[in-house]
Amino acid sequence: MSTLPVTIEDIRAAAVRIKGHAVRTPLLRCEALDAATGARVFVKAECLQRGGAFKFRGAMNAIASMSAAERASGILAYSSGNHAIAVATVSRLFGVPAVIVMPSDAPRAKLDEVRAQGGEVVLYDRVRDSRESIGAKLSAERGLHLVPPFNDVRVIAGQGTAGLEIGEEIAPDIVLTPASGGGLAAGTALSLPNARVYPVEPEGHDDVARSLESGRVEMNAPGMRSICDALMSPAPGDITFAIGRERWAGALAMPDATTLRAMRFAFERLKLVVEPGGAIALAAALEGAVDLKGATVAIIASGGNVDAEMFARALGV
Amino acid sequence: MSTLPVTIEDIRAAAVRIKGHAVRTPLLRCEALDAATGARVFVKAECLQRGGAFKFRGAMNAIASMSAAERASGILAYSSGNHAIAVATVSRLFGVPAVIVMPSDAPRAKLDEVRAQGGEVVLYDRVRDSRESIGAKLSAERGLHLVPPFNDVRVIAGQGTAGLEIGEEIAPDIVLTPASGGGLAAGTALSLPNARVYPVEPEGHDDVARSLESGRVEMNAPGMRSICDALMSPAPGDITFAIGRERWAGALAMPDATTLRAMRFAFERLKLVVEPGGAIALAAALEGAVDLKGATVAIIASGGNVDAEMFARALGV
Repeated sequence: MSTLPVTIEDIRAAAVRIKGHAVRTPLLRCEALDAATGARVFVKAECLQRGGAFKFRGAMNAIASMSAAERASGILAYSSGNHAIAVATVSRLFGVPAVIVMPSDAPRAKLDEVRAQGGEVVLYDRVRDSRESIGAKLSAERGLHLVPPFNDVRVIAGQGTAGLEIGEEIAPDIVLTPASGGGLAAGTALSLPNARVYPVEPEGHDDVARSLESGRVEMNAPGMRSICDALMSPAPGDITFAIGRERWAGALAMPDATTLRAMRFAFERLKLVVEPGGAIALAAALEGAVDLKGATVAIIASGGNVDAEMFARALGV
Repeated sequence: MSTLPVTIEDIRAAAVRIKGHAVRTPLLRCEALDAATGARVFVKAECLQRGGAFKFRGAMNAIASMSAAERASGILAYSSGNHAIAVATVSRLFGVPAVIVMPSDAPRAKLDEVRAQGGEVVLYDRVRDSRESIGAKLSAERGLHLVPPFNDVRVIAGQGTAGLEIGEEIAPDIVLTPASGGGLAAGTALSLPNARVYPVEPEGHDDVARSLESGRVEMNAPGMRSICDALMSPAPGDITFAIGRERWAGALAMPDATTLRAMRFAFERLKLVVEPGGAIALAAALEGAVDLKGATVAIIASGGNVDAEMFARALGV
């Protein structure tokens, strides 16, 4: 194996850095899930993480890794929501300003929470504008330090701590994890080196699958829609993909209808509020997208920041 | 203090008996809850317990305490739902038959789950019939062994293990717990002897409050309605009340509208699915029913078995 840009030692260091700030989320069992899959399944409930998603891990590791002077000049992030909440929350904990570039169609719950955490929100149009160029401009003008949503070694190491916690409790054969830019999927693959790790992405947003197939970073077609607002990055990053190309077992793409069913399953059986993007790995397990029979399986339920209307839609009421 | 029918040693023995079967549920923190109450609040997420409610603890302790011969002749329970699920589940684990007497207006989710666990359901009319006499008749006819929903030393000791787990992680000044017959509230008061424990019950079902006031077991008026289907017992039991009279700090009664708001809060902030009866202690905290300022507070979110329609009602969609 060639040298990867993030190592398990980086993840262990991140675990020390975030300890006492991040929640050690529970690994939940569910008989109905075992019965549906023929596997021994454990759900890592990252929706119970601080800020309602795993993103707190990476944001905390990145911002805690900065020098006090870097932090003091202010933090910048662009995000569909969960990374935004995480960066705003961590910035508040450190007492430094945060500017967050968010799509105008982000769920109300996420916009509200960023503002509640004291973040300054700058909106952009997901189809027309480039959040990267808006971010670059703000960064240059105001001297802010960017915390990228996934393509960053500190962020990947932070997200990897979820996998580290899984590995301290079980030895999974297979891990199913939601994937957008691949930060969580890359970190998980590094922290659970003996598991087959499958990133799961929305149908029509199968940039990870196509990238694995072609061997280079592939983009999604612009303007595609999915209910998985958290999984709309245009492509994996070069760092996440460098890790994923070596470590991912393959990518799975799930239609929105299966994600809605998985949200309802989580409501009925796990008693967890899981957002669409957070439920997609569960959807892959429930729909049999990969054969899990007889395996010990970890599924990451990566976030729970969902508006009431979307949740009611998943419940079918 | 006079000798009580259940001791903390009974609860410690129950903890050993249920270990590896019951979930050690997480104690969740929430900044918004701290801000709303001025306290340091921890939510014991018993909705994540096996079967979706704390009731598994008491049922497991009671059934595991029986002799193999007692168990083999079959188990009987009457319950509005969560105790029913728990007894059916534990009976299945022991491979013995279970007959469950349930009200005809129990939530569909609870009826379905009892049947899914292999329980034989006998329905009764909550207003017209006495579940106790139906249970007594079945017990006599079929030689079944009753596991009472709350008024039983084995059940109370089992429910007390939730408090024992709380006490292993924090030292709460105040505990708010949902109360119907008082099994959980009695067990919690015994396992957390240094805390002020408040049972919380639905407005109009304030049998615990009135019993504490008069010094003897008082009944609710028959036919009263509440959305808290899990909290509709007609009165505390003589055993639970004997404990509560000595140990409870006072009872709080909350209107259904506040319980619905608490369910929404749990959805938005805790990412937990909590049923009405499970959210009532959270409602008491959020509405300031007792002064929590500066205190370390444990709130028990006792269950999450709620139909989609009721949940959507709480979300206001």
